[in-house]
Amino acid sequence: MSNKGITPREKSYPEWYLDVIEKAELAENSSVRGCMVIKPYGYAIWENIQKGLDRMIKESGAKNAYFPIFIPLSFLSREADHVKGFAKECAVVTHHRLKETADGKGVEVDPDSKLEEELIVRPTSETIMYDTFSTWIKSWRDLPLRINQWANIVRWEKRTRPFLRTAEFLWQEGHTVHLTHKEAQEEVKRALGMYVEFARQYLAMETYYGKKSDSEKFAGAVNTYGVEAMMQDGKALQFGTSHDLGQNFAKVFNIQFADKDGSLKSPWQTSWGVSTRMIGALVMTHSDDNGLVLPPSIAPIKVVLIPIFKDENKEKVLEYSRSVQKELSKSISNVELDDRDFVSPGFKFNEWEKKGVPVRIEIGQKEMEEGGVVIVRRDTSEKVKNGFGDLTEVVEKTLSDIQENLYNRSKELLISKTYRVEDFEELKNTFEKGKGFVRANWCGDPKCEENIKYHTKATTRCLTDDGVGIKGKCVYCGKDSSEEWIFAKAY
Amino acid sequence: MSNKGITPREKSYPEWYLDVIEKAELAENSSVRGCMVIKPYGYAIWENIQKGLDRMIKESGAKNAYFPIFIPLSFLSREADHVKGFAKECAVVTHHRLKETADGKGVEVDPDSKLEEELIVRPTSETIMYDTFSTWIKSWRDLPLRINQWANIVRWEKRTRPFLRTAEFLWQEGHTVHLTHKEAQEEVKRALGMYVEFARQYLAMETYYGKKSDSEKFAGAVNTYGVEAMMQDGKALQFGTSHDLGQNFAKVFNIQFADKDGSLKSPWQTSWGVSTRMIGALVMTHSDDNGLVLPPSIAPIKVVLIPIFKDENKEKVLEYSRSVQKELSKSISNVELDDRDFVSPGFKFNEWEKKGVPVRIEIGQKEMEEGGVVIVRRDTSEKVKNGFGDLTEVVEKTLSDIQENLYNRSKELLISKTYRVEDFEELKNTFEKGKGFVRANWCGDPKCEENIKYHTKATTRCLTDDGVGIKGKCVYCGKDSSEEWIFAKAY
Repeated sequence: MSNKGITPREKSYPEWYLDVIEKAELAENSSVRGCMVIKPYGYAIWENIQKGLDRMIKESGAKNAYFPIFIPLSFLSREADHVKGFAKECAVVTHHRLKETADGKGVEVDPDSKLEEELIVRPTSETIMYDTFSTWIKSWRDLPLRINQWANIVRWEKRTRPFLRTAEFLWQEGHTVHLTHKEAQEEVKRALGMYVEFARQYLAMETYYGKKSDSEKFAGAVNTYGVEAMMQDGKALQFGTSHDLGQNFAKVFNIQFADKDGSLKSPWQTSWGVSTRMIGALVMTHSDDNGLVLPPSIAPIKVVLIPIFKDENKEKVLEYSRSVQKELSKSISNVELDDRDFVSPGFKFNEWEKKGVPVRIEIGQKEMEEGGVVIVRRDTSEKVKNGFGDLTEVVEKTLSDIQENLYNRSKELLISKTYRVEDFEELKNTFEKGKGFVRANWCGDPKCEENIKYHTKATTRCLTDDGVGIKGKCVYCGKDSSEEWIFAKAY
Repeated sequence: MSNKGITPREKSYPEWYLDVIEKAELAENSSVRGCMVIKPYGYAIWENIQKGLDRMIKESGAKNAYFPIFIPLSFLSREADHVKGFAKECAVVTHHRLKETADGKGVEVDPDSKLEEELIVRPTSETIMYDTFSTWIKSWRDLPLRINQWANIVRWEKRTRPFLRTAEFLWQEGHTVHLTHKEAQEEVKRALGMYVEFARQYLAMETYYGKKSDSEKFAGAVNTYGVEAMMQDGKALQFGTSHDLGQNFAKVFNIQFADKDGSLKSPWQTSWGVSTRMIGALVMTHSDDNGLVLPPSIAPIKVVLIPIFKDENKEKVLEYSRSVQKELSKSISNVELDDRDFVSPGFKFNEWEKKGVPVRIEIGQKEMEEGGVVIVRRDTSEKVKNGFGDLTEVVEKTLSDIQENLYNRSKELLISKTYRVEDFEELKNTFEKGKGFVRANWCGDPKCEENIKYHTKATTRCLTDDGVGIKGKCVYCGKDSSEEWIFAKAY
């Protein structure tokens, strides 16, 4: 345990993760099993994610809308695969009224208020949306239809961890409907590419992305594509998925359009989403034993100014600090001045370090006299003096250097910890000793995949585009294969 | 029924309202009883409301956060008044799992998954938030605490109407905690004032606002303040409330802080909110028999360009229209060009009129030759020709004129239909004949209030600041009174 109250990663990566979440004040457990409270600092990160991603989603032509949180139980039974994969662990609403208890001191469920049909709190919205889409879509002119929803989602997970797996979480879900399968497939790839680009530009993360195996695909989809990031412990975290739904849902929800020739046809659908899980990925990718590390482009506070003063020079140092804040704020958003006088500068350094603020600026008597400041980078701890004159430029440059450095680190980790293996012994050894991803040929037989999982706990993560056509022997059974898959232990 | 498929207001105001919602494509009923689908155009209005209001909320120092959608049943029993007023009609989660039916074709609730304690889908979040606040607040330094949440809310309403009253709706709820009652009371007034200002600036609506009577206040509050708008049928629509919660919740949720002298004290709390109901108010305030009318500052599309062409001049007219769009888009956001070639210009006029786009610009052969356009205002139907040269200026001026005109109309309606009455006969007559609000003295006795409601269906709406100290006789019992209240029939 460091002086920051954070378990070092070497000691326990899972404990470290929970400590960072707590000390950075991102989220905490609530009184409701498996549901977290997203605290203001954590929510501000989510708002930044929303802002960036919402712009990309709208540029793609999708429009935001809002559908009911409840799904009639019978809807879930309609698409056979969907119900098998999805509808098991969820919150079921059975009654719609409470009444006073006999002693008048509390409330209890009114048994007379039983619903005719139970309602499920949405675990995803395909069924409730497509029921409506069937009335919106009549002609080929109504296609493509592109709808996105920002919403809360409930899945009754047994074991939960803040951001990574919680009973309730926040997400966006895009749902599109197309004239042809080809167009739908292009949309699936476009959405996947959007997530990959978003991860690069905003989260400073490099990822692998590609098709998931049948056992890992979305319940009801023809094909699922996923984005897989590597955490510092070498495990994979999938944070975005994009599904080719084929005509599966269109057929059971009676979505049909009159084509140009007048004939009635079933359209082709896609859905794609990312959630607050992304924040978990962000934390685990960049943070260190001193706490959270945030890429500037997603940080709620980009720069924090810490004045160092005693009673006798307090007003002067604060005044100078305010002028620095004013100057920086002209071009940089979210420059915070920590002017508290009841905690020490050391306490503040610690606190903002734990919160992952990219740039800390220290301003004391000496800096004030010299007309400068001290700039400290969160990612490298590098400390430099700088004058007032070109301060904005230098801080802006520092922020973009941090963004780039974090991205490069993420990319290096991904590449350096991805191992090509040829046979099952090598695969087992790699997962036992090394931490990371494995590239290996796989014949596509679900039994091989199952056996690999049984022996190593690693699963197929995805088939990247450049893994297609790589000739080799299946890492488990030795049969010929022309697909090199990414395998990893996953969150 | 007009040729737009909209029932005239004179014939049936409630039918007209539903027709406008439908024809403007704001929302529609879903397959889930009482829950609406907010369609893209309606949701875009909500996004604009959120954007404007979120800025105001953050400027007040509040920070956004997110709390669980579920509330343990026992939480609702804690604050005695709260449970009586609130916790009756709501969605109750009793189970957390489904299982396959015996025939394998569907799913049913797994009886083994019964929850130990039922969960309520939040009808408001005081209880779940304040349970957490009790751990966040320790010292006077932690106050004031200002938290805001954007969320979905469920109240099992028997009779529902899109936006006005739905089982699920979207809202923001602000929750603040203060050192003193005085500071909390100031916050209550500040939030109320924020809603009034928001209504003026964005929704072009003038309102009455002030304290609610005890019978109309929030369950668990010491005092509730409300914002009341007048609809075109003279009925009141309350769209924002701000509550002085006193120490009621603090005491039952054990929120305590150590004051400067070391003593433990209960803080003072407020909560305040507005919801998608605001969209209902917006629709009913400005719209007419041709459909929706939107104030420019909240309109998803501010200007629509409609090219009028035949096959032979299509390309030229479109090219000219695009140059107009490009020019306007430099200074005006959301300028749409309707370049569809499979519907007539008349059809388009109709459609955009129903959708309430503030300014329509018509561009045909003649306009193109003259290097101009025709500008049509949605609010007055006024049509003017204008050249290309100063077009942006003129359109900007037109938009601000529309905003002002709609606000002035709303203010005029409010003033002209508010009647001061002296006795109960006059009050009854006013509500029977005229449509509008009544200002009358009331002694404060809940029995008088009840009797007035029984005989006229009108309720006390609020006590405005300038109603305090007005001497007169209670409109029902004739006793001396020094408060002039606003009475109205209400949505």
